[in-house]
Amino acid sequence: MPFAPNGLVALTTDFGGREPFVGIVKARILSRFPAARCIDLSHGIPAGRADLAGFWLGRAWHEFPAGTVHLAVVDPGVGTARGVVLAETGGQLLLAPDNGLLPEALRARDGVAWRAMDPALPARLTLGELSRTFHGRDLFAPLAALLAAGELAPADFGPPAAPADPEPLPRATPGTDSGTTHIAGRILLADHFGNLCTNIDGALLRGYQQPVVEVAGKHLPLLATYAEAPERAPLALINAFGLVEIALNGASAATELGLAEGAPVSVRDGVRA
Amino acid sequence: MPFAPNGLVALTTDFGGREPFVGIVKARILSRFPAARCIDLSHGIPAGRADLAGFWLGRAWHEFPAGTVHLAVVDPGVGTARGVVLAETGGQLLLAPDNGLLPEALRARDGVAWRAMDPALPARLTLGELSRTFHGRDLFAPLAALLAAGELAPADFGPPAAPADPEPLPRATPGTDSGTTHIAGRILLADHFGNLCTNIDGALLRGYQQPVVEVAGKHLPLLATYAEAPERAPLALINAFGLVEIALNGASAATELGLAEGAPVSVRDGVRA
Amino acid sequence: MPFAPNGLVALTTDFGGREPFVGIVKARILSRFPAARCIDLSHGIPAGRADLAGFWLGRAWHEFPAGTVHLAVVDPGVGTARGVVLAETGGQLLLAPDNGLLPEALRARDGVAWRAMDPALPARLTLGELSRTFHGRDLFAPLAALLAAGELAPADFGPPAAPADPEPLPRATPGTDSGTTHIAGRILLADHFGNLCTNIDGALLRGYQQPVVEVAGKHLPLLATYAEAPERAPLALINAFGLVEIALNGASAATELGLAEGAPVSVRDGVRA
Repeated sequence: MPFAPNGLVALTTDFGGREPFVGIVKARILSRFPAARCIDLSHGIPAGRADLAGFWLGRAWHEFPAGTVHLAVVDPGVGTARGVVLAETGGQLLLAPDNGLLPEALRARDGVAWRAMDPALPARLTLGELSRTFHGRDLFAPLAALLAAGELAPADFGPPAAPADPEPLPRATPGTDSGTTHIAGRILLADHFGNLCTNIDGALLRGYQQPVVEVAGKHLPLLATYAEAPERAPLALINAFGLVEIALNGASAATELGLAEGAPVSVRDGVRA
Repeated sequence: MPFAPNGLVALTTDFGGREPFVGIVKARILSRFPAARCIDLSHGIPAGRADLAGFWLGRAWHEFPAGTVHLAVVDPGVGTARGVVLAETGGQLLLAPDNGLLPEALRARDGVAWRAMDPALPARLTLGELSRTFHGRDLFAPLAALLAAGELAPADFGPPAAPADPEPLPRATPGTDSGTTHIAGRILLADHFGNLCTNIDGALLRGYQQPVVEVAGKHLPLLATYAEAPERAPLALINAFGLVEIALNGASAATELGLAEGAPVSVRDGVRA
Repeated sequence: MPFAPNGLVALTTDFGGREPFVGIVKARILSRFPAARCIDLSHGIPAGRADLAGFWLGRAWHEFPAGTVHLAVVDPGVGTARGVVLAETGGQLLLAPDNGLLPEALRARDGVAWRAMDPALPARLTLGELSRTFHGRDLFAPLAALLAAGELAPADFGPPAAPADPEPLPRATPGTDSGTTHIAGRILLADHFGNLCTNIDGALLRGYQQPVVEVAGKHLPLLATYAEAPERAPLALINAFGLVEIALNGASAATELGLAEGAPVSVRDGVRA
């Protein structure tokens, strides 16, 4: 499906909500493309964590209608010679610094057309002088606006090129331990509710008859919903993004279990086949 | 006034702003109804507090023009057999899990038409398989979109039915104590400014000549504005939602007075009639 | 350029995101002007800090297209007799309480047409009774809506009048110390990233051959980008708003250096000419 813009620009950043950084990006978009409709995906990505921005964008971009432009700016290399990449897939465009964000977002996706921004593009589009600390405003906003307005075609963005993929998030893998199989993963992040999302794809558990999730010395049952556990009791489930998640029913697993990003999690089959 | 959609969908959740949960809900709405205009009411409702979501929605929904669809998702029972309710009033629709949220929002309201979702509706609308942890995305977003698009009529949502109302917020009541009348209430919540909103309806004070608000051993005058108190001094007033509020002029009452939800507050008439 | 409305209303407040205060303001705007498009600039201004609201609005308002109405509500004097001011400049309107917010935002701007609200205007527009604690809802929202709808002309807002300017933010000044010149400034604020924005205009450094920024006993080089410093090392740069900023590469300067608003910062020329 070729890209045909629908006017939506979806934004993912680590800019937070305290200063008007996001509002300034939207203002620049609206100045170039007054009919743009900006939708916030998240501005609460931990500062500088392009990998987590990619993780969340990967769970969200495909929910948007074809024709959407995604702008993702987590950009610790702002002002340096780092590149800018554009991905086209499923009739949507995704624009970001070339720091691994988009490869993380599109890891499971086939048929992505990648392009690297022609370094001469900003001058050709007369974007003006770029600051060295706020390319979200000076570079990414006008690019997203022109793509969303249909005034800049993906083919004019730059040549096809593979994106950088420096630090992919670790992925859980099946293994064997004392003769039994298990899946060794880890906690990727604690969400707003204190639910602990792991990197263990629920599909890996398909053959398991009675999966038991082990974390911090605890053995947790794999339930279907939060409310199946007793109140404030820990549980595991496969969440709405298809990943194994550690949670408490009605409380924060991050706080109550004292767990954070990187803590090991494993899944075994409680029933030996 | 019968409901005639105006394209607005107002959102109230406990999803926070760190992960793209709200953005994903909007994406699903826009996928079903591209002309939808989403307005955020709050995504900072304390996790799982359907009662507080109802409280705030109750202070806000009537500010919207007729034709608005309100989607409120605070849903600790997500994935269980809990129902879904739709309220129609004043030409607007309000959609939420059947957990007391909407009865709290509409407590003072007469003439509300309540409906319970027909359990067969999601299949009839071909919403696809629902996750067990994110009905905001899988169920509520498409329902809100179809209602806002005028493609699903309230009458086709399900049969008239009274909503569940399991844990209404406590309400202040007038009483007598040692022969004098007073109103016994409590602090409902501390807001972003640290102002302490009580459950005491200002209308209860109408007969009082010189109301004195007692909280944490302090006797506070009832003033008209924050700025009437000396700087950083405590005061009480009737706030913009008609409720008695404890505040400090230019500082946080929650922090400075060390008070939180549930603390008792009473009002007496300093002048014995 | 005379003001010709484009339908955009940009919002700057200290209302936070927990309660639906901002959503209620938008609802009132949409009720008066259904085609309004509301854009959030910031709702995370520190409570009551009209000066910081002005600072950030000053960095943002000119990014919007002509025809935009800016509504800025940081209003510790809500409910008192404080005035309301309207500024017209560059084809945009800015509306706020008369507490110094807009003068701070427009300090560097020539050719601003200032007006003071006619006290009879709310009654003439039949805005209804105003609460004493939420003029964002009762007064500013309908005024902004009517201005953005073109139903209230700036000339009908009130007579020309200079705004109040009670507590302007301090400005860095060049001085001499032991016979050498230096610029004495201070930290204005720590942003979401922990970057410390000073009040030192980068333009003041133009004659310097090798600027050295002194803060908390440290002498920091003036670099061009964050990434030029070693990881987690402190640096100074001229940020995207033209101000000297203290930062760490990949970490929070506020946390790591233990610095906050008001801390002194100076710049000297490391090369004596």
